[in-house]
Amino acid sequence: MAKEIRLNAFEMNCVGHGTHGLWVHPENTRHRYTELAYWIELARLLERGLFDALFIADVIGTYDVYKGSRDTAVREALQIPNNDPFLVVPAMAAVTEHLAFACTFSTTYEPPFPHARRMSTLDHLTNGRVGWNVVTSYLPNAAANFGLDGMVKHDERYAIADEFMEVCYKLWEGSWEDEAVVRDRERGVYADPAKVHEIAHVGKYFRVLGPHLSEPSPQRTPVIYQAGTSARGREFAARHAEAVFVGGGNVEGVRESIADIRRQAAALGRDPQHVKMFPSCQIIVGRTRAEADAKRAEIQRLLSVEGMLAHYAGSSGFDLSRYQPEEYLEYRDTDHGQTSARRYTQGKRRTAREVIEAIGKLGDGTLFFTCGTPEEVADTLERWIDETGADGFNLSQHLTPRTFADVIDLLVPELQRRGRYRTSYPPGPYRERLLGPGQARLPTGHPGAVYRRAAAVAVA
Amino acid sequence: MAKEIRLNAFEMNCVGHGTHGLWVHPENTRHRYTELAYWIELARLLERGLFDALFIADVIGTYDVYKGSRDTAVREALQIPNNDPFLVVPAMAAVTEHLAFACTFSTTYEPPFPHARRMSTLDHLTNGRVGWNVVTSYLPNAAANFGLDGMVKHDERYAIADEFMEVCYKLWEGSWEDEAVVRDRERGVYADPAKVHEIAHVGKYFRVLGPHLSEPSPQRTPVIYQAGTSARGREFAARHAEAVFVGGGNVEGVRESIADIRRQAAALGRDPQHVKMFPSCQIIVGRTRAEADAKRAEIQRLLSVEGMLAHYAGSSGFDLSRYQPEEYLEYRDTDHGQTSARRYTQGKRRTAREVIEAIGKLGDGTLFFTCGTPEEVADTLERWIDETGADGFNLSQHLTPRTFADVIDLLVPELQRRGRYRTSYPPGPYRERLLGPGQARLPTGHPGAVYRRAAAVAVA
Repeated sequence: MAKEIRLNAFEMNCVGHGTHGLWVHPENTRHRYTELAYWIELARLLERGLFDALFIADVIGTYDVYKGSRDTAVREALQIPNNDPFLVVPAMAAVTEHLAFACTFSTTYEPPFPHARRMSTLDHLTNGRVGWNVVTSYLPNAAANFGLDGMVKHDERYAIADEFMEVCYKLWEGSWEDEAVVRDRERGVYADPAKVHEIAHVGKYFRVLGPHLSEPSPQRTPVIYQAGTSARGREFAARHAEAVFVGGGNVEGVRESIADIRRQAAALGRDPQHVKMFPSCQIIVGRTRAEADAKRAEIQRLLSVEGMLAHYAGSSGFDLSRYQPEEYLEYRDTDHGQTSARRYTQGKRRTAREVIEAIGKLGDGTLFFTCGTPEEVADTLERWIDETGADGFNLSQHLTPRTFADVIDLLVPELQRRGRYRTSYPPGPYRERLLGPGQARLPTGHPGAVYRRAAAVAVA
Repeated sequence: MAKEIRLNAFEMNCVGHGTHGLWVHPENTRHRYTELAYWIELARLLERGLFDALFIADVIGTYDVYKGSRDTAVREALQIPNNDPFLVVPAMAAVTEHLAFACTFSTTYEPPFPHARRMSTLDHLTNGRVGWNVVTSYLPNAAANFGLDGMVKHDERYAIADEFMEVCYKLWEGSWEDEAVVRDRERGVYADPAKVHEIAHVGKYFRVLGPHLSEPSPQRTPVIYQAGTSARGREFAARHAEAVFVGGGNVEGVRESIADIRRQAAALGRDPQHVKMFPSCQIIVGRTRAEADAKRAEIQRLLSVEGMLAHYAGSSGFDLSRYQPEEYLEYRDTDHGQTSARRYTQGKRRTAREVIEAIGKLGDGTLFFTCGTPEEVADTLERWIDETGADGFNLSQHLTPRTFADVIDLLVPELQRRGRYRTSYPPGPYRERLLGPGQARLPTGHPGAVYRRAAAVAVA
């Protein structure tokens, strides 16, 4: 049977997320990101469209690499202003029953203990519908907001991230046994002290005593997301990730990334199908080809090349304002995001002019892009899924709420007709929807599962 | 005209908050703290009762001083398990229009930059209905959860807190000018880069570059709450607090605390009436005296002395299990909570037996306690307000939702009949409700206001 296609919505608690310049479109409502109603309407829309999850990106600094200034970012609302991603989730969870929420949090600057409690709190409040997109942060300004003289080196960021994960797993999986909470009103015992444990973690970067403050939540560990595609990033994904936000814009590249991460996961003793793959994707869909093309042209016209260049500079470290048009970009193992550094150059030698032209063009080949009628788009998505081994797509938006509303109203029915999209949500927490019934908790083979305690043996 | 009495609800995202042993009562719903519905129902109840704010306490460690163990705390659900206080606010904000939310956050262990963004995010999402209860943390276990060998000393905690506040004020008040956000769709300008500033804070404890990531929220700085009543705590309150959660259980003590803090605030150039005072208070109200007494007896019967002793040990540092009954408690300037250390001893020499007896008794004189008919309770509250200079009360609960429901259904109508309680909410953000119309932002004289930038002068 052909695999069902899963859709995630890619969002951020800000005005300009990924395709800049478009906030000025009269239909675009992104300036309402500070209102609870914006998020509540979005969540209802996505649940009506049977989306798997809302994926919320985040940065904790400003894009100030381009032209050595943050001016472009501020002018174009390029991820500044931005607000905390976690705090919009509870209001959305209150008006939905199935939609999951994957929030981004960086392991580089804040301590693990309160983060673990925030994730447990959300997992409780959503009844098991949260994921955590683990990032290590690529903006130099973020380091300066946390008192550091410069960015932590790329590989050390991942070493910190590995230990951060270990602390969290110990808190989520190892601190409270399944039978710890007894709620015995007769005896006045809420929890059994013998079944609540310190974690006493002592590592290179963190020392955390515990116990975890939260009692076990439906999933314990939230579904772990990861997006890094550097060598070290893939290694991290293979070890920890249960869902990967895959970059790269052609079938071969995405297929190779997916196969590589799954191969590494298998080598670590994990079921490779326990790593779900979501390439990033932009969809423009119209009732007719002409309508789709008109939408594309309108979006292309508003796209801000300046904003896109400032974004690229901040995430990749390449400030194209400092290059001559025919000068080649020097690709290095930058401490910035390696995904972004490779984006547009794709590891090949490219001149600044070539990259700038690509950056200014919708459907530039750096991520999956499709534009057409519902039938055409569905054909393309089916092919991408079948040829890459992906499980679904992380959908970027151009206009809010139109991009997702179009997908839901026009594309989803077509995918359903083809048996490639769910017609209702299966029950259970988010991880069960990804891994199958009964799989609410981390599966055996996942590195977090080793911190679980054996069930207590009853003493006769 | 007699002053209106304001009511705050004192809550915590946990089972056992302040009066232990009561979660076993069949009507008590505190075990539902992990559900969004619990918080949504509570917020609706409090808004129906025209409460000023929901005040949410927090700790980031476990009570493990009593008998040198956390066993009592875990068994009795004494603030463990507990969940993050911020994450319940957005769902409550979505179903209310006026109720404010004051969340507790400690300045001792986490960095200021992301905290400032979390508060701004909440202030945006609630449309200006948030406060921050600034604490410095008294539990030794909290320090161990953040990699420290021991607690930071009491006075140094306050020095850190002062600098933490300075960083936050710079981010909230000084980073974005009022005119920075222009949202000019014609020119494609969301914000004017010339009006968004780095803060470039370099201090003893923190270095933060900025700019703040959030655009200005309705109140900018959330309403600042504080609860410390040590000498250093009062000094901090006089400088920063706009609302003080006052301890102490007799009229003279509360009046003296209030007068002292207001005197210090005035000496610092603040309007002393800009520091609102909320003594903690427990109310048991019944339709008749007999009904009220029956409620009191039922609660007294369930009160867990063991739980109260464990709470006292963790917050004060006095482990009464280590004292002989007739041994006197040695009152020291402990690094634990000085408020709590003084609670029950009130600075006087007391034997362990005397303190244990007080701890086990409802209405023990350590905080305002009143039990009676609506008329009797209203008489008492009026007297306390008029004799102490307080502005309202922070109401503890014994049973959820009954304690607040009784106050709202029985006491509030009586106070309204006397003209001592609002009959509808005035419009505007939380700070306007405290300070008056037009006062959404920090008033002149508050130390945070000095970081505000002068309005830009238009160039002709």
